[in-house]
Amino acid sequence: MSIAYDPDNIFAKILRGEIPAHKVYEDEDTLAFMDVMPQAEGHTLVIPKTPSRGFLDAEPEVLAKLVKVAQRVGRAVKTAFDADGLTLFQYNEPAGGQTVFHLHMHIVPRREGVPLKRHEGGMADKDVLAAHADRIRAALGQA
Amino acid sequence: MSIAYDPDNIFAKILRGEIPAHKVYEDEDTLAFMDVMPQAEGHTLVIPKTPSRGFLDAEPEVLAKLVKVAQRVGRAVKTAFDADGLTLFQYNEPAGGQTVFHLHMHIVPRREGVPLKRHEGGMADKDVLAAHADRIRAALGQA
Repeated sequence: MSIAYDPDNIFAKILRGEIPAHKVYEDEDTLAFMDVMPQAEGHTLVIPKTPSRGFLDAEPEVLAKLVKVAQRVGRAVKTAFDADGLTLFQYNEPAGGQTVFHLHMHIVPRREGVPLKRHEGGMADKDVLAAHADRIRAALGQA
Repeated sequence: MSIAYDPDNIFAKILRGEIPAHKVYEDEDTLAFMDVMPQAEGHTLVIPKTPSRGFLDAEPEVLAKLVKVAQRVGRAVKTAFDADGLTLFQYNEPAGGQTVFHLHMHIVPRREGVPLKRHEGGMADKDVLAAHADRIRAALGQA
């Protein structure tokens, strides 16, 4: 059984403009913004605008658009942070690591020898996140 | 700079039929099979048949097809293992956790309170993997 979508989740509020986010990319279907509890510098989230709780209840075409944007944003994140690699995470349900119940993909730039920080390791400084978002937007050619 | 695709990676060998795999799904563009070093029971990999080293050098349409199959396989994995959640991982370059240099998505069924095993935690028993592949194929309606 799938669980109903809760329109009061924080990503839904970001999509409605009710709470702010450090946005790096937006189109008709997709939004990308900085994770406020980054596991590494440049940790970015990509979400569809269409509501779905997770990966399994999304329309296939929503996933197809999302993954294409994730690639573009992923390239920009890697460039912006001069990363050695990139790790993508996608969590479903609490047992699967999900804490916000709107489908999202994590894009995490990685450096040799630098382990990931815990996701609950604390809120990043707002000015730092704003600067990181600027770097990614510049790498996307949208600065 | 992107690094050239190495056609001698083990997933390329699986695609060419040079080494065996416990397959759960196959179509013209995509193959899914059991991870031989599972981080949880039912850990499945989905790969495109088109060569690419990782997420960033794949054609966008390859990613779109891959993610749609990952959703179908993900639903079957969740059903087959009666999982509470699902975690997807996608690793790029050694710094990003990648060990086989052909694009792949990890689909890992999760249970409440059960941490993931280390990916290098050892090879699973072949008969167990074969039985798990059977369960997933059955859930896909292809048994």
